[in-house]
Amino acid sequence: MFYIITYDVNEMRVNRVKKLLRVFLKWDQNSVVSGDLTDSQYLELRKELDKILDKSKDHVIIFKSRSSKFLEREDIGTPRGLGEDDALFI
Amino acid sequence: MFYIITYDVNEMRVNRVKKLLRVFLKWDQNSVVSGDLTDSQYLELRKELDKILDKSKDHVIIFKSRSSKFLEREDIGTPRGLGEDDALFI
Repeated sequence: MFYIITYDVNEMRVNRVKKLLRVFLKWDQNSVVSGDLTDSQYLELRKELDKILDKSKDHVIIFKSRSSKFLEREDIGTPRGLGEDDALFI
Repeated sequence: MFYIITYDVNEMRVNRVKKLLRVFLKWDQNSVVSGDLTDSQYLELRKELDKILDKSKDHVIIFKSRSSKFLEREDIGTPRGLGEDDALFI
């Protein structure tokens, strides 16, 4: 399955969420990752995500498509790259 | 067509981009909007977006699917709502 995950997470937890998501998916943009996951990879990611998130304060959206073939993607402009705060996790 | 648009835009231009995107699409999360657009609506949006963006500094990702039926969506947690800086545009 192809996933697009976007997140808006409190700064107390955001670096842990970023780090986790980047283990499984490709960084696209600040707060956006995407890529293919098997069902077991998704379950593992989901389990770890649920441990980190405070569901009363954080928000994650998971879009799932059977394949990236069902989605066209267009990028406008220039990705800003990983921020300095992310260097810790590369 | 169903669109998911995410953006990472310099603060000099971000409020204009937010305001424009919200005319056409539903606010989902900070820097994420989605919804259905006809081809002519998309062209109109795209034209206006191209006027605002500095493509050497800003980055917008447009995911397009024939229908939202081809995408499953799951939300975890609580949307934080429009930030205070957005109140100007409601």
